[in-house]
Amino acid sequence: MTKRIPVVEKILSVNDRLALENQARFDSAGVLALNFMASPGAGKTALIEQTVKGLQGQVRIGMINGDIATSLDADRAQAAGATAIQINTGGDCHLDAVMVQSALAQLDLTALDLVIIENVGNLVCPAEFKLGTHRSVLVASLPEGDDKPYKYPGMYRGVDVVVINKIDLLPYVPFRMDFFKKGIEVLNPGVTQFELSCRTGEGIPAWLAWLEKQVREFKES
Amino acid sequence: MTKRIPVVEKILSVNDRLALENQARFDSAGVLALNFMASPGAGKTALIEQTVKGLQGQVRIGMINGDIATSLDADRAQAAGATAIQINTGGDCHLDAVMVQSALAQLDLTALDLVIIENVGNLVCPAEFKLGTHRSVLVASLPEGDDKPYKYPGMYRGVDVVVINKIDLLPYVPFRMDFFKKGIEVLNPGVTQFELSCRTGEGIPAWLAWLEKQVREFKES
Repeated sequence: MTKRIPVVEKILSVNDRLALENQARFDSAGVLALNFMASPGAGKTALIEQTVKGLQGQVRIGMINGDIATSLDADRAQAAGATAIQINTGGDCHLDAVMVQSALAQLDLTALDLVIIENVGNLVCPAEFKLGTHRSVLVASLPEGDDKPYKYPGMYRGVDVVVINKIDLLPYVPFRMDFFKKGIEVLNPGVTQFELSCRTGEGIPAWLAWLEKQVREFKES
Repeated sequence: MTKRIPVVEKILSVNDRLALENQARFDSAGVLALNFMASPGAGKTALIEQTVKGLQGQVRIGMINGDIATSLDADRAQAAGATAIQINTGGDCHLDAVMVQSALAQLDLTALDLVIIENVGNLVCPAEFKLGTHRSVLVASLPEGDDKPYKYPGMYRGVDVVVINKIDLLPYVPFRMDFFKKGIEVLNPGVTQFELSCRTGEGIPAWLAWLEKQVREFKES
């Protein structure tokens, strides 16, 4: 017989405590922090590139990129003009508050207005771990299929914003936008949503305008 | 200070032992077992639908569908003509050998030639847990991007077959097939590969012919 040890609960509460510490650091620096989550390849890094370029000169952006093994995403964020800190999780399937805390030690928050944390590409595990961010942003994409809210309810239920990326592929993939949005509405009524294409740029201005307003209002609050 | 308890190692070794028991059950029934893994929405269920339809009358297929919350995939497999057992992981990000063992109690292996286990959509965690299958099949898809082997090396390194799905989207997404295949080759030299589209049917016959041969040779061995 295996004896069950309730380790997960304890790890989560330690994580939650550290997440609050991270959030206090963001708060005292007046820096808005976002947690970007998505499936592998939904377009988190592409949206970050568009965001960094689009808000250049208006919003000073820092990046924390979580990746299992490479610095490919941090390199892309840096090339787009952001200050990027790379976290290699060493195989771990999500970021946690400890990893973010160690990244914050390398990031000068006084020189920033916004920090975007790019989580590991995974629609399950990242939803379980608070990082200390103010908003969670889920990047969905059309080729993943319209059943994803129904199949990954934990992720869709817990986020503040859903960005629906790759809308340029609508003519080429089977995707019922109504069915997809109905799933979101059931799990997360009234959640803020954007439809856009990081490839063509369609819908990006509305996202940038919203984000710029969030940063401004956070500074003023 | 937190004391670290090496729980993961023990869980894995219990899992490995159960995986061997599962495999012995498949072996004694002469049933080939496959573990399908992929990102959310890469096309595992679509490939299963094509496989069940394509091998109808030749290969008797049973399905075990792992899902976090719904039976959407099992319903699709059943509609395509397979005997399907649904496992709801209740939030867990992967299948393990215990879950497969409990599903096997509901599946009559003597009436089957092939069992396909559809894992939870996740490019990280499922690679860590053996189920007792004979081959692991990774379903990749073009819209995920060509950097995925580099970013998810654990998954790409451990599989026996890579199926590259949604090749019909090649004109519409940025994807360098050479770069993608170079990543696979470094991590998993000589791994069996298929390029296909479950939507258009292109490349499906080669996959079916290979799979039918695998099932036949397994029975004869």
